[in-house]
Amino acid sequence: MKQIEKLTKGQSVILASGSPRRKELLSQAGFSYHVMVSDVEEVITETNPAKVVMSLSLQKASDVAEKCLDGIIIGADTVVAMEGVILGKPKDEKDAFLMLKRLSGTTHSVFTGVCIICKKEGQIVDKKVFYEETKVTMYPLEEEEILDYIASKEPMDKAGAYAIQGKAGIFIKEIKGDYYNVVGLPIGRLVQELKDFG
Amino acid sequence: MKQIEKLTKGQSVILASGSPRRKELLSQAGFSYHVMVSDVEEVITETNPAKVVMSLSLQKASDVAEKCLDGIIIGADTVVAMEGVILGKPKDEKDAFLMLKRLSGTTHSVFTGVCIICKKEGQIVDKKVFYEETKVTMYPLEEEEILDYIASKEPMDKAGAYAIQGKAGIFIKEIKGDYYNVVGLPIGRLVQELKDFG
Repeated sequence: MKQIEKLTKGQSVILASGSPRRKELLSQAGFSYHVMVSDVEEVITETNPAKVVMSLSLQKASDVAEKCLDGIIIGADTVVAMEGVILGKPKDEKDAFLMLKRLSGTTHSVFTGVCIICKKEGQIVDKKVFYEETKVTMYPLEEEEILDYIASKEPMDKAGAYAIQGKAGIFIKEIKGDYYNVVGLPIGRLVQELKDFG
Repeated sequence: MKQIEKLTKGQSVILASGSPRRKELLSQAGFSYHVMVSDVEEVITETNPAKVVMSLSLQKASDVAEKCLDGIIIGADTVVAMEGVILGKPKDEKDAFLMLKRLSGTTHSVFTGVCIICKKEGQIVDKKVFYEETKVTMYPLEEEEILDYIASKEPMDKAGAYAIQGKAGIFIKEIKGDYYNVVGLPIGRLVQELKDFG
């Protein structure tokens, strides 16, 4: 849409993430963009989930920004948090089972941190880091349902071992917050933040 | 998934709706189904949005059920409601503009009614009607953003003149309830209701 072109003022948009979900969300919103995946080694020094995702999104965007002369660079990171414990991607099927068992019938939070960096002629002229939290409540899951879901392989590369936009959609009773934040990028908030950026 | 086959106990599932969104949601959840679009003339005698969508989903499912001997027939209807006023699909672009202007910066409700009818050997053996409500909060929209969105044609066949799963995703600040209910079918609740059905 024209409004998105206006937002980015003709600058290139660079997504510092290889996630196919984030790419789809940027396209759905009407952005034109390039992808440059950061190869930075992620360093976690925080335990607070909001701080973790902001720090990791900043690391990814900064790494890619170093390699660009001009453009708007967007980094993002998503984690699932429950009772102070951060759930990343499951290590194996057993780990996925334990995560889903833990999330069954309860409410957890999904945090996505986003970092936007604007570079012009090699200089950083603006930088923002923010996060969104969405609360997600799951129906109680039977063990058979969990095993059936794991057999679909969908959980294996997802934070918290589920994809709300996939087969796990039927497990979700309700959410409070932005749905796209759970998918991996709070696209509405991103547009709002770009309105007075760069 | 096997769990979905178990739910429907080998019976055919018939979706009494031609909506491409509802078809996608049933497929995403793992249902095998046929489509039989109801040609019943929708009669609205209610003003309460929950009663309206339940009544219309019942009319659609009943109409299709009359033409089937066996199967699980699913009817659904979605409306947007704000301050007691029901917003259906916009009549024209001006109507879409007025609806979006009204929804801008505020919270409204999306109601989807669902009717499930189980028929065996020509007899109705079970029937359920329920609804889900999701509250949706939009960011304030500039007139230019609304006009740009209308130019995309996306609003024209959508209740409330927007598609949360489309370009209007960036207009949404938060929701409370089931996301898929806003898209047109509360798929998680449907699975729960099927657990003790038929």
